[in-house]
Amino acid sequence: MKILAVGAHPDDAEGLCGGTLAKYAARGDQVTILVATNGNVGSPTLSREEIGAIRRKEAEHAAAVIGADLIWLNIDDEFLFHDKETRLLFIDAIRQAQPDVMFVHSTNDYHPDHRICGEIASDCRIPATVRLIETAHPHLDKVPHVFIMDNIGSIGFDPELYVDITDVFETKCRMQRCHESQDAWVQHLYGIDIVTHMAKSATMRGMAIGVKYAEAFRTLPMYPVTGGPHLLP
Amino acid sequence: MKILAVGAHPDDAEGLCGGTLAKYAARGDQVTILVATNGNVGSPTLSREEIGAIRRKEAEHAAAVIGADLIWLNIDDEFLFHDKETRLLFIDAIRQAQPDVMFVHSTNDYHPDHRICGEIASDCRIPATVRLIETAHPHLDKVPHVFIMDNIGSIGFDPELYVDITDVFETKCRMQRCHESQDAWVQHLYGIDIVTHMAKSATMRGMAIGVKYAEAFRTLPMYPVTGGPHLLP
Amino acid sequence: MKILAVGAHPDDAEGLCGGTLAKYAARGDQVTILVATNGNVGSPTLSREEIGAIRRKEAEHAAAVIGADLIWLNIDDEFLFHDKETRLLFIDAIRQAQPDVMFVHSTNDYHPDHRICGEIASDCRIPATVRLIETAHPHLDKVPHVFIMDNIGSIGFDPELYVDITDVFETKCRMQRCHESQDAWVQHLYGIDIVTHMAKSATMRGMAIGVKYAEAFRTLPMYPVTGGPHLLP
Amino acid sequence: MKILAVGAHPDDAEGLCGGTLAKYAARGDQVTILVATNGNVGSPTLSREEIGAIRRKEAEHAAAVIGADLIWLNIDDEFLFHDKETRLLFIDAIRQAQPDVMFVHSTNDYHPDHRICGEIASDCRIPATVRLIETAHPHLDKVPHVFIMDNIGSIGFDPELYVDITDVFETKCRMQRCHESQDAWVQHLYGIDIVTHMAKSATMRGMAIGVKYAEAFRTLPMYPVTGGPHLLP
Amino acid sequence: MKILAVGAHPDDAEGLCGGTLAKYAARGDQVTILVATNGNVGSPTLSREEIGAIRRKEAEHAAAVIGADLIWLNIDDEFLFHDKETRLLFIDAIRQAQPDVMFVHSTNDYHPDHRICGEIASDCRIPATVRLIETAHPHLDKVPHVFIMDNIGSIGFDPELYVDITDVFETKCRMQRCHESQDAWVQHLYGIDIVTHMAKSATMRGMAIGVKYAEAFRTLPMYPVTGGPHLLP
Amino acid sequence: MKILAVGAHPDDAEGLCGGTLAKYAARGDQVTILVATNGNVGSPTLSREEIGAIRRKEAEHAAAVIGADLIWLNIDDEFLFHDKETRLLFIDAIRQAQPDVMFVHSTNDYHPDHRICGEIASDCRIPATVRLIETAHPHLDKVPHVFIMDNIGSIGFDPELYVDITDVFETKCRMQRCHESQDAWVQHLYGIDIVTHMAKSATMRGMAIGVKYAEAFRTLPMYPVTGGPHLLP
Repeated sequence: MKILAVGAHPDDAEGLCGGTLAKYAARGDQVTILVATNGNVGSPTLSREEIGAIRRKEAEHAAAVIGADLIWLNIDDEFLFHDKETRLLFIDAIRQAQPDVMFVHSTNDYHPDHRICGEIASDCRIPATVRLIETAHPHLDKVPHVFIMDNIGSIGFDPELYVDITDVFETKCRMQRCHESQDAWVQHLYGIDIVTHMAKSATMRGMAIGVKYAEAFRTLPMYPVTGGPHLLP
Repeated sequence: MKILAVGAHPDDAEGLCGGTLAKYAARGDQVTILVATNGNVGSPTLSREEIGAIRRKEAEHAAAVIGADLIWLNIDDEFLFHDKETRLLFIDAIRQAQPDVMFVHSTNDYHPDHRICGEIASDCRIPATVRLIETAHPHLDKVPHVFIMDNIGSIGFDPELYVDITDVFETKCRMQRCHESQDAWVQHLYGIDIVTHMAKSATMRGMAIGVKYAEAFRTLPMYPVTGGPHLLP
Repeated sequence: MKILAVGAHPDDAEGLCGGTLAKYAARGDQVTILVATNGNVGSPTLSREEIGAIRRKEAEHAAAVIGADLIWLNIDDEFLFHDKETRLLFIDAIRQAQPDVMFVHSTNDYHPDHRICGEIASDCRIPATVRLIETAHPHLDKVPHVFIMDNIGSIGFDPELYVDITDVFETKCRMQRCHESQDAWVQHLYGIDIVTHMAKSATMRGMAIGVKYAEAFRTLPMYPVTGGPHLLP
Repeated sequence: MKILAVGAHPDDAEGLCGGTLAKYAARGDQVTILVATNGNVGSPTLSREEIGAIRRKEAEHAAAVIGADLIWLNIDDEFLFHDKETRLLFIDAIRQAQPDVMFVHSTNDYHPDHRICGEIASDCRIPATVRLIETAHPHLDKVPHVFIMDNIGSIGFDPELYVDITDVFETKCRMQRCHESQDAWVQHLYGIDIVTHMAKSATMRGMAIGVKYAEAFRTLPMYPVTGGPHLLP
Repeated sequence: MKILAVGAHPDDAEGLCGGTLAKYAARGDQVTILVATNGNVGSPTLSREEIGAIRRKEAEHAAAVIGADLIWLNIDDEFLFHDKETRLLFIDAIRQAQPDVMFVHSTNDYHPDHRICGEIASDCRIPATVRLIETAHPHLDKVPHVFIMDNIGSIGFDPELYVDITDVFETKCRMQRCHESQDAWVQHLYGIDIVTHMAKSATMRGMAIGVKYAEAFRTLPMYPVTGGPHLLP
Repeated sequence: MKILAVGAHPDDAEGLCGGTLAKYAARGDQVTILVATNGNVGSPTLSREEIGAIRRKEAEHAAAVIGADLIWLNIDDEFLFHDKETRLLFIDAIRQAQPDVMFVHSTNDYHPDHRICGEIASDCRIPATVRLIETAHPHLDKVPHVFIMDNIGSIGFDPELYVDITDVFETKCRMQRCHESQDAWVQHLYGIDIVTHMAKSATMRGMAIGVKYAEAFRTLPMYPVTGGPHLLP
């Protein structure tokens, strides 16, 4: 199976569904991480170019942890908008990954890039199948199934589905730690390190199903529903 | 695996999750249908005793179609209330069935017996495990996972999960037709026969996932979530 | 057409749909007001018997303003519960009124009697049609259409339907003023007189549709939907 | 009365409110169908120009079935965005139709063009009345009343209002069959023909109100509410 | 100020708002904990009488940690129902505590006793002020403000209000540890100890507002709203 | 404390949170009103330039009533869109005001400018803190707390928080009356004067909490929640 996780920034997919991706990868599925923006503002001290270059490297390392492919759209961080050019960028990237299953941001997530990224990604699931929308890669031959990822802070997100990630939690942490530049940034913004932050959500979601760590999802509630929870690892 | 479907009236479980039950049965799971009320008003012409006796027979036949067990609580139709005596009846019946998975009515279903039956059944999932609540059967050793069934008319019910019942649709129809007294009743009430009525919902839910017939469910959104969609057939 | 408004206390129907009832009455429809409890606590000074007797008189006067019938269930104020006896009382009262249309309390209304009264009344719409549930009056031959009334304070109630009551606002006020014992009570509880209190909601609801005064409703979102907004006056 | 149905693609208005439009037309109301995009990708084999030309013809034929006017905005299919130019196109088109009542897509519909079309159309109801926004047609002199149409697949759409379309169902089918190029397309995408697809929703919505076929709507829950359900045919 | 926290079982108030209660107590407010049921099933080994006696002692110790009063209604655990007798018990207990502020269970909490306890407690806020409902204690002279507590597992509960309990977290833990019999029980049911369980929710809620530990609340969305968030410590 | 109210048009902030702003100002907080569009269509008779110039003057006078600063973004009325240029305008304006607390439009408000203004303003709370997004004013050093204002018509807005504005109601009216050009406009559109219109909402919201006039708010339900209701005056 082919899996595509679409994150607004480098490290978002890792934080919100990294454990699930690790489980897919471990059983042999082909995982792609699509990063919409280049993260070129995520530093309290570096220049845009410096932090942008670092974050790309970090994203590559994180993907490598589970042998995932990386697609880097290189849109300026904090300035993701839903226009024709961006829609086409996403359509082509989705076609490149040929996903059976997509993971997208919740549209009530905390950051505009997340919200808009989630909107674009799910909006593309149908256009990506349309022959007459021509991009570099050939159109998909079926609509991928879409899961919506938990949001940052897990506020106002009612999970329908859980994946127990206890076994792969260490892998998930390793993926997140590849984004070491973000430790400084998240520490700067929220006063805690990036892994601790994520672990709080994972612990809470795990509590719901009686395991140590879990990730939570919903199914996109839109026609056509082309798959189901059995597509989760 | 042991499956328990809890219906307010004879024929409710068949109509709302009969296809799913048929799939469980076909693969060897042990299915029990719990009928809360005796259906002793469901006739435009017969007496309470006459229609009650008929409906029990019909329920037995319907369960027999898939080799399911039947638990008959024999509460008066239209007068299901959530009191201590009824709660204990349900707890004991659930213990008798020892379910891994329960199917219960949605609390926004159209009929008070449905709403209240759904409330009691899901309320019992934890008390059924409590040793010091003594009933005829021994307490469960774990909290069953609870799925909520679609409601009659599929109004205000947002499905999270679908089961493709196309393959077993004929079996589901056969189960429903066992309730032949209800053809007259449903014809009397709503102007159509019972199978046609059900087929409209099944068709609609099937359309969502691109199959001919489906049934729709939600997971009870309450702690602890002891299973998941993988428990569906 | 026959209209039944079901209020928890004397004056509730007047306050929440009195203008709409006045419009029905003015065009010749037969209106019945069903009062569940006898209001026998609604006084800062009188005894239960005294205030109960006064409130019945007031309810009769208010109904008389529009020529409505009054059904007085005489349940103790503040102690309405949803048990079999009360359900049967309601079923019989509904049968007596033979409504095409019912108005019931919203189940998120502010007072337990309101919430429970709304639950019982809408729960009875189907059982009232069942032949084998025998009460003093014969069973209905069809399920009445149910509208849900705005709640006290208009909090968390999203109107679907509005009735312009500007023309009958004075009549509505006259109906409310019949409950003169409640002026003292509402003044005691909330510091304003009963008509001013109601006028605030009516003004707000009117603003939404660009008229001076309106009442707001929803349709009961449950199968079967036996009528529609064209049943409003 | 003047009625405007705003569809994202040729055939959307027919599918989601075609029966209601047929009833308006039959009683003499003036119906306009506004088609936002030109449908120039809806073919598994033809070029953009070929399928675009065909779909316009089909849309004209479908409108002609009920004597409706057609407004063709000619925006590229799959690339409807909410920018100033598009907003002005819609404002002018709405002014051309001078509607008392508008039908618009639900913003939780399955396709981005639907969602965005619904957003633009309802956003224009007020600006269309503003004198100083100058377009080819003169500004409206009142805010039209807006009904929201059911979505494709009827997922997550809770109807408030129903129109019985049993009598005009054949007319609705005839309108849809004018879009014969879409039979191939829908067959290609979802494995069933376009009329069967629509009939499943119409059957389900009809079941709710006890008729063979119905269409379902909601009122736009926004100030000012300038009309009401009595505006439905 | 006088504060009343209403828990279904011994330890519920401590777990869901114990930190907030500790803050009230620390600043000199008078705190009462009302425990509806006697917890007489919460043991894997003891008899009802034994565990009931233990739990009362534990509840007294827990209340004593912050100098709170304890009201013990002594209803059988797992069998809390909303009938007249229970309503009167609650009314009298609320009158005894004379609260300015009440904390009650969310009605979507995981256990029937919680749900029903929350319903009764908030339903009593108005009847407790009614002179003609006579109980052992005199009626309140104003409607207390009601906050709804987070639910167990924090599922489907959208916080409106947070209280930072970092400073008093140790006190909260001490209160919970007084319920030592429940360590065995919770360990038996959910595989973790009672304090760890609570800390997961407190950590998650704290993350939302950038502190180590927090508790989350909502305001009862019902007329009249007699206070506000400034009543939180 | 520094307060920023973000209105789509001149007079929106005054109408939706003017009383609250007056209370802040009265106690010495520094209030800024940010007006996104220049209101250059709000006249039944004047030209764009004329009405635009008048409205700026009116906005200055209204702000002066409470000694507030005014930021005038001068975007064309009715054409606020969420693009990069507009996002940067808002970010810079927010930085200029350096708010501890922001008030923004609800995204279900009645007018597209309101909805989009609310979306942009809350989307900017995080980017405004990002060093590498350079604008004329230096970046904020913390994320402001965001309150969502009631919508026009108070439809579908469930208040979480209320501010009693009875004491400052006259001041609020004075602020609104500064927008005298809008009396003609609102009279033209909705048939009532601007202050009467506002007073209807204020009266309704006041009724909920038992005061004469109030304004209603919600907290932005998104991570991080950097403040709380104690930030209200």
